[in-house]
Amino acid sequence: MDKLSSLAKFKSSCPFLGRTKTSTLRTLCTSTSPRYPSLSRLTEKATSCPIMGPALQIRSGQIVAGYASVAGSAEVTNMHHHKGVFPNPTTANIEMCPHASKALAAARMAEDLAKAKVAKETKPTAAPSTSKAAATDGCPFHAEGSSKPTAATASTSTAPSGGFNYEGFYAAELEKKHQDASYRYFNNINRLASKFPIAHTGNVKDEVEVWCANDYLGMGNNPVVLETMHRTLDTYGHGAGGTRNIAGNTGMHLALEEELAQLHRKDAALVFSSCYVANDATLTVLGSKLPGCVYFSDNMNHASMIQGMRHSGAKRVIFKHNDLEDLEMKLAQYPKETPKIIAFESVYSMCGSIGPISEICDLAKKYGALTFLDEVHAVGLYGPHGAGVAEHLDWAAQKAAGHSPHPIKGSVMDRVDIITGTLGKAYGAIGGYIAGSMDFVDMVRSYASGFIFTTSLPPANVAGARASISYQREYVGDRQLKQMNVRNVKSRFEALDIPVVPGPSHIVPVLVGDAALAKAASDMLLRNYNIYVQSINYPTVARGEERLRFTVTPRHTLDQMARLATAVDEVFTTLAIKRTSDWKAAGGRAGVGMPDAKPVSPIWTDEQLGLLDGTSPKMLRNGDAGFIDARAVRATREKFNDLLGKFGEPLPIAARASTVDAVRKDIPIPDSLTGPTPLAARA
Amino acid sequence: MDKLSSLAKFKSSCPFLGRTKTSTLRTLCTSTSPRYPSLSRLTEKATSCPIMGPALQIRSGQIVAGYASVAGSAEVTNMHHHKGVFPNPTTANIEMCPHASKALAAARMAEDLAKAKVAKETKPTAAPSTSKAAATDGCPFHAEGSSKPTAATASTSTAPSGGFNYEGFYAAELEKKHQDASYRYFNNINRLASKFPIAHTGNVKDEVEVWCANDYLGMGNNPVVLETMHRTLDTYGHGAGGTRNIAGNTGMHLALEEELAQLHRKDAALVFSSCYVANDATLTVLGSKLPGCVYFSDNMNHASMIQGMRHSGAKRVIFKHNDLEDLEMKLAQYPKETPKIIAFESVYSMCGSIGPISEICDLAKKYGALTFLDEVHAVGLYGPHGAGVAEHLDWAAQKAAGHSPHPIKGSVMDRVDIITGTLGKAYGAIGGYIAGSMDFVDMVRSYASGFIFTTSLPPANVAGARASISYQREYVGDRQLKQMNVRNVKSRFEALDIPVVPGPSHIVPVLVGDAALAKAASDMLLRNYNIYVQSINYPTVARGEERLRFTVTPRHTLDQMARLATAVDEVFTTLAIKRTSDWKAAGGRAGVGMPDAKPVSPIWTDEQLGLLDGTSPKMLRNGDAGFIDARAVRATREKFNDLLGKFGEPLPIAARASTVDAVRKDIPIPDSLTGPTPLAARA
Repeated sequence: MDKLSSLAKFKSSCPFLGRTKTSTLRTLCTSTSPRYPSLSRLTEKATSCPIMGPALQIRSGQIVAGYASVAGSAEVTNMHHHKGVFPNPTTANIEMCPHASKALAAARMAEDLAKAKVAKETKPTAAPSTSKAAATDGCPFHAEGSSKPTAATASTSTAPSGGFNYEGFYAAELEKKHQDASYRYFNNINRLASKFPIAHTGNVKDEVEVWCANDYLGMGNNPVVLETMHRTLDTYGHGAGGTRNIAGNTGMHLALEEELAQLHRKDAALVFSSCYVANDATLTVLGSKLPGCVYFSDNMNHASMIQGMRHSGAKRVIFKHNDLEDLEMKLAQYPKETPKIIAFESVYSMCGSIGPISEICDLAKKYGALTFLDEVHAVGLYGPHGAGVAEHLDWAAQKAAGHSPHPIKGSVMDRVDIITGTLGKAYGAIGGYIAGSMDFVDMVRSYASGFIFTTSLPPANVAGARASISYQREYVGDRQLKQMNVRNVKSRFEALDIPVVPGPSHIVPVLVGDAALAKAASDMLLRNYNIYVQSINYPTVARGEERLRFTVTPRHTLDQMARLATAVDEVFTTLAIKRTSDWKAAGGRAGVGMPDAKPVSPIWTDEQLGLLDGTSPKMLRNGDAGFIDARAVRATREKFNDLLGKFGEPLPIAARASTVDAVRKDIPIPDSLTGPTPLAARA
Repeated sequence: MDKLSSLAKFKSSCPFLGRTKTSTLRTLCTSTSPRYPSLSRLTEKATSCPIMGPALQIRSGQIVAGYASVAGSAEVTNMHHHKGVFPNPTTANIEMCPHASKALAAARMAEDLAKAKVAKETKPTAAPSTSKAAATDGCPFHAEGSSKPTAATASTSTAPSGGFNYEGFYAAELEKKHQDASYRYFNNINRLASKFPIAHTGNVKDEVEVWCANDYLGMGNNPVVLETMHRTLDTYGHGAGGTRNIAGNTGMHLALEEELAQLHRKDAALVFSSCYVANDATLTVLGSKLPGCVYFSDNMNHASMIQGMRHSGAKRVIFKHNDLEDLEMKLAQYPKETPKIIAFESVYSMCGSIGPISEICDLAKKYGALTFLDEVHAVGLYGPHGAGVAEHLDWAAQKAAGHSPHPIKGSVMDRVDIITGTLGKAYGAIGGYIAGSMDFVDMVRSYASGFIFTTSLPPANVAGARASISYQREYVGDRQLKQMNVRNVKSRFEALDIPVVPGPSHIVPVLVGDAALAKAASDMLLRNYNIYVQSINYPTVARGEERLRFTVTPRHTLDQMARLATAVDEVFTTLAIKRTSDWKAAGGRAGVGMPDAKPVSPIWTDEQLGLLDGTSPKMLRNGDAGFIDARAVRATREKFNDLLGKFGEPLPIAARASTVDAVRKDIPIPDSLTGPTPLAARA
């Protein structure tokens, strides 16, 4: 009753509210913004209100957004009281208000957005402004500001009861994230299987191009994968229903591990909930079991490896990224009989560099160390069968060995003791794994808490992952086309003086060098160009090395790549982001414009891409259907005959693999693309 | 060529090989045993060979199985040489032999099985026997033994190269597991969606009843769950394609977290890869962030919580299981303003006890502590909406509040600060979560490495989990029927003097008290009765408290429950396992036959089960169709209209929910079941 009468009051004094139906307002108020899940759609609309819009942009201690200010619960109470929403404005009422916490979050976001804007427009030296938001009455967007500290900064160490003030502590920890612009807002992105690489936002009709997903090959919607999963779901249902030891060990799990062992030509493999867990659990077990074990860890290693080494309690020696001299100097300080593990990656996902695997294996042999190689960003993407960079390095021999499960003596993949990989990126699935010797895998299986005491992955996902691996073992074309497209995008960026961090892999990192600017660029690409690429800020990369990280898939079309380059170029101009030449003039940063830089060649050679003998796959134009290899589909299907029965129906390939014409808001294609893309430009 | 000629030689001297086709032998040799994945089917067959059978049973240092002995690689080389399998028996050949490592594992298993047999038949004082396996020639099962140490015990600290002997170390760590009978053999169990609770083993025609899965309600094959997953797979494909921050945050994830927050009437929830990760990550963040934080941890807490507390580096004080006096004594030793977290569970999964949640909240308030409650074995199973034991304790108020997201002031669920739960057990899905205040959840979201740096769960699984939660929020019948069946099984066991560890929950732990015996009982139930219940040994339970842990679902029939009781009774007799009366005479163990035991009432009252007003669901007989609640299906479907579109087709409910008549090998139903089960026996 009271709510309705106050709404009538608001309506009379705000032209927007006046002409909008109550039911619509209710919907706007309770549904989240499609792109910014922490905002309500009403708040989002407020940004275009002549009174509220500027208020939302003001960087101050009491930005106003939606239903509440961030000035603390006293202000919220007061505002609700003033508006008559709650007849008795007690604290209990505030706690019961479903909008209060969301509105606080929304206000906080408006403040961060404003901060990003300020960072762009001025030197970030501006002290917190004390200017107040416009005070009006009637409209729920307009509320009195105050100069009190925000709830987030008002933490004290003790609560009124004398105990520790936990809520105040949480708020203070979050405030730190807001202050250094490392607070993360998750965009609502729903990747559409039938329109890859298009996704819808929170609104199913609002479509965007995805340029940063790790479904590197589009295997998440490969028809043989989905077909296998549908059939497995029908046969075995959803969850595994137990740990591997108790009712959760199925033929699908055993077959996946067999497939993985064969892929890497190792004795055995073991599947985990994720590769984060695989790395963490394996390194924890090794470091805590091996007597006096010392880890030698590349300083760019992934968080999961760092956690595992830390959790093990073993000594950890950090060596400079890909620096063999530094590594050897450090290895040499320990007796040969001391157990040592060199932990490193093949493709480093944030800079795109590749580890010197063979040379590290040499050092490992010389100093009696184990090699632990994370191939997370490489499996599915490198090598004639997709086993990763270690396989790629012996291309001819590995290709000749076909599907033999036996190791190739002396090959790089054979010399690496432990390989870890993910099923969640190039394979488009979920989960992670280790591969190595029988007893090594059996020991981790027997001792790793994170493996033993957790429900195993659902059979359908496990089957889907295996189908994906099997398909990629048979068909090299997706890997080739991906790398061709990567070359295309890198060439375009380089031609436009856009600062690509140089590297031999598929990763396309574009340096921005400022957290607020990187976020602003990401937001602008999404808002104005329907291009989704997440900004990568601290702690994922070092401060000052913030970037946009593009992932280019075999299914991105030439038209999409051309538009991407134009859009990024425009955003760089609009936001005045430094170009390659600027970094060069400033002495270089993060590999961009370095004075002593040597040219970097891609690890996929022209020959491996089929560019020399003309066997390379065809790049796509908008409207082209993606290619599905029928032989790989057949070979994969046959592997499931034993558990799922024979399946003979033709696949609806065309329907699934077609790419869409364009996204909702068309961006003109700037340069004419009449033939194959200008690969020469990069050579 | 050589292989074929040696096979011809084997065939001439072994009647089995002689009458078996070469192609069949090849299949037997390369396919794994349906029930014991580490054995080949040929090895399994060997157990019925008059020469090999006894050899496999002999506990000695060189048990012979399959293609190789466990006497080490020298022996394997020798054997292969002797048999002419390899013309040049070098070590390289052995490493290339695909059977060698599997045969070693198989032999090791035969040894463990023999040990279990010895443990049963004699006091386990028998020194390692030096008797040799029968030496014959010609048959691949028969090989010369020797008294050399096994490969597994032959570890030395340094390898020939002077470096550490990693492989020897792994083998020695595994040998420890074999020695104390804690080495785990995973049974191959494939739970069939259309025949719940039946599964097939490695052979699709070999069906068994599953009595230990954690798919507690059969939601893994609920039709609305599977329908939702099929549709989500078609719409969004398989993997999420990124972390929550980078392309992996979908509307399905946001909706699941909203559903979970509402379920627990908390501000917010956050989903993780598993509840292992949720507990580990959350406790790591809290303990490492809160200044001077002290954990108070129940001594029966799950491994994931223990890991998280350890990883945090915070002080950890262990209190006696469910002992409020001990907890208070320990809390009182710290100033009120010191940050403290009491970490405990609602249902302890291995003994079936229930934590005193409300009383612990009282203590938390008194001493200024946070409460961290793991409801992993309770969510979906307790409370009018399946929110867990905390909800169950305020049954009437919680039921009356319906689907309101607002907390009920002063209720137990409201007073608990942090609730963690799994999607992988009662909800039949995958993943885990935390629920609590907005800023608490946001802080974990912002700081927990195990959440930030991992690919998010696939949209289809997330949607399936939400459908399952939604269905169980609407329909209480599965929970009721489960508890009725639990009462039934417990009553039957107690009537037969089978030692059930007393408890108020759905867990049915049956004490065996010996690792080898527990494994033997589990194996015998599987082999002779087609009943699969995994033995629970150290480190999951304390040594001397080994047990069989039965999980009874709403879909187990009266006939199946009756047969189960008979089968367990027979196995107890055959293996001479102690009965309740034996434990009582010996002074009791693990809650069984304790002198001071008070009777324990189930937490689900007769009223809550609908036994007083006659609204309880109908127990099933073989052949009965399971019940699917149409209203809950409708309500759940509506929740997905926004993302998946309206779906109106009728569900193929009957086809899905029917239970099967019987498993392949019928076991006679021993006692007549003419009406409702004898609940009175338990009262």
